[in-house]
Amino acid sequence: MADSTSLQSRAIECRQFDNGLVLLAEPSREVQSAAFTLLTPCGYAVDPADRLGLASLLCDMTFRGAGERDSRALVNDLEILGVERGESVGAAHTGFSGATLAENLHDALAIYADVVRRPQLPQDQLDAAKLVCLQEIRGVEDEPSHKLMEELRRRTYPEPWGRSSHGDEPGVTSATVDDVRTQWSRRFQPRGAILGIAGNVDWDRLVERVESLFANWKTGDASDPTDQPPVATSPHIEFASNQSHIGIAFPTVPYSDPQYLQAWAAVGVLSDGMSSRLFTEVREKRGLCYSVHASLQTQLTRARVLCYAGTTAERAQETLDITFSELVRLGDGIEQGELDRLKARIKSGLIMQQESTSARSGAIARDWYHLHRVRTLDELSAEIDKLTAETINAYLAEHPPQDFTFATLGPQPLRIPTADN
Amino acid sequence: MADSTSLQSRAIECRQFDNGLVLLAEPSREVQSAAFTLLTPCGYAVDPADRLGLASLLCDMTFRGAGERDSRALVNDLEILGVERGESVGAAHTGFSGATLAENLHDALAIYADVVRRPQLPQDQLDAAKLVCLQEIRGVEDEPSHKLMEELRRRTYPEPWGRSSHGDEPGVTSATVDDVRTQWSRRFQPRGAILGIAGNVDWDRLVERVESLFANWKTGDASDPTDQPPVATSPHIEFASNQSHIGIAFPTVPYSDPQYLQAWAAVGVLSDGMSSRLFTEVREKRGLCYSVHASLQTQLTRARVLCYAGTTAERAQETLDITFSELVRLGDGIEQGELDRLKARIKSGLIMQQESTSARSGAIARDWYHLHRVRTLDELSAEIDKLTAETINAYLAEHPPQDFTFATLGPQPLRIPTADN
Repeated sequence: MADSTSLQSRAIECRQFDNGLVLLAEPSREVQSAAFTLLTPCGYAVDPADRLGLASLLCDMTFRGAGERDSRALVNDLEILGVERGESVGAAHTGFSGATLAENLHDALAIYADVVRRPQLPQDQLDAAKLVCLQEIRGVEDEPSHKLMEELRRRTYPEPWGRSSHGDEPGVTSATVDDVRTQWSRRFQPRGAILGIAGNVDWDRLVERVESLFANWKTGDASDPTDQPPVATSPHIEFASNQSHIGIAFPTVPYSDPQYLQAWAAVGVLSDGMSSRLFTEVREKRGLCYSVHASLQTQLTRARVLCYAGTTAERAQETLDITFSELVRLGDGIEQGELDRLKARIKSGLIMQQESTSARSGAIARDWYHLHRVRTLDELSAEIDKLTAETINAYLAEHPPQDFTFATLGPQPLRIPTADN
Repeated sequence: MADSTSLQSRAIECRQFDNGLVLLAEPSREVQSAAFTLLTPCGYAVDPADRLGLASLLCDMTFRGAGERDSRALVNDLEILGVERGESVGAAHTGFSGATLAENLHDALAIYADVVRRPQLPQDQLDAAKLVCLQEIRGVEDEPSHKLMEELRRRTYPEPWGRSSHGDEPGVTSATVDDVRTQWSRRFQPRGAILGIAGNVDWDRLVERVESLFANWKTGDASDPTDQPPVATSPHIEFASNQSHIGIAFPTVPYSDPQYLQAWAAVGVLSDGMSSRLFTEVREKRGLCYSVHASLQTQLTRARVLCYAGTTAERAQETLDITFSELVRLGDGIEQGELDRLKARIKSGLIMQQESTSARSGAIARDWYHLHRVRTLDELSAEIDKLTAETINAYLAEHPPQDFTFATLGPQPLRIPTADN
């Protein structure tokens, strides 16, 4: 049994280079792995309107040869280093992440310096890369829950922040290798780039390494797009199936807001854990659906609570009504007992996160993006300790769930409820 | 940077109680969490033929009150302990797993002793539990890739080993609370039960705790079902969609076989990593599909390689043909370079696994089930070091992929290839 299970005080090291790149690290001697997350300021929000999917296509193309290595050598060398890779295209960033043995981290970073700074973006691989992207777009068509949530995001966010990360078929099909290269040269650049690292690393040697790999990376353009209202669409998508999929969204405060943790905890009471309101009221008591959940999705200056329920067509209206009434009821506040359970789950989750270098490397990079600083885990833990039902209820009284957006997908449209019901 | 990234030598402790329950632990002082996996010998393979889904229904019912606690108190108390729960119903076991702060482990185990030994299985919760199970069955209907792989498993395994873990609608609908209670009293029992624990635990205190909670658990019946040939079905499921889903299976050796690691590594060359054959040939070079993968799924005395590809209807035949030809080509052997990359990925994966108490608790419980002993991570690492292209190719020459089973789902049937093509 542990003598103490409080979080360890791990320092966060930080260095910002002259070109804008921010290097962050949370060194830990207790592990043998090291993980990195490199965010480049090239998200789907900056895809040109007639090239939706360009960020996704560019991300695929970066691995088809970079620096001296062709496509095959690149992938092989990463695998020889034992790198467990992942890439993701978000609204504001393309993220490259990897985890491996700590002793292989420096070599892996050298390869990623090629990937983001010297990709070959070869013309002769463009068609294969496009086909992969098109297949992913079509794959979503076959996953109705995924398709529904894409539609909900499109309806609730201002353009271009609610786009699908995959883009669309016309955008990908019409993209040329010049489009890919132009987007790369404009957006894969150090101003706005963040490299977060967690694991068994020596900070001084890491700074030296990253400096030699990235300090002479040239700054490009990184202007932000202007918000536009979402394109008006009907809330219902017709879909031949016995199942119905229901999405409800409402605005909330983003990560950088001083009240963020209040908003986040309120959503936790709604949907985190088996005693959460949605799970208990919609699934366990009434058996209305096989899946129901809500989560807070934050961007830099805007955020939404996104709620999903999947059910059979005949129970869809009841599921929508009950789910919606739980969202509205949240405005009446939460109870201390609900918060106590949530805090226990969060505390446990922080310990698990501390033990995962991959999770930490991503968390510290995202923290910097939102806050321009990194909260240590014990700092976050202390802030969570300070949450009370009173503070959360004060937040909810001021910001009750409202301004709802709906999306449904299934064999027939549903009656959209209103808060006065 | 780490001085050394070899695996730590962690001892595995083991105690078998007189009633048959096996307790395993991998204590580690480097972490603050502890995780457990409790396997009970109640899988879907022992569902009565007219009650398919009974194991799944029983699993849901165990949390609707146990010991002194009603449904709500049970869930609340687990959450107060910060337990991150998971349950799964497999062919041979229902598994209960959880991870939490090490200091909360003993209290969590006391609750799980109630869940498996003293569930209330209340009549008045049966309808809600059934609805949850029925929703899950219907949810699969809306996920064609999931539906296809269920069909492939049904076609490739002898009955009852290829069943869907969720069962079917008639089985769940007709189940009574007596069915649930009978199955519980017969199958939730210590002979064949395994409790694996990893994390910051003191072995002596743990043994004492588990003994007081489980040593007087009574032994019941745990006979195994008899194998039957699978019910013959057509390989194609008609599905109105622009997408096609393709499944191919072939027999391989189970985990307990001395040649298992050879078979497993061969599948790794086929499908593990971005340089794997399926990923390279089917996705990256030809852009044929958005998803393609193969994995080795092992049961106690039988195992299959299960391969999936999802693509558009117009490219489905080509995808099937190319994927199949890669499976057949595996029989010709692998190259040393492919194995070197695979070994690097595996090594890295073992380090990550070592750093996750949840992963370790599950791995040591499964090891015991298959081997009646537990391989330490450094023992496994040493065995992987010994793999060579020669040993794998000798295995493949003796056991080339053959006796294929196919399943397809999409707008039209495909031409099933043969190895002579």
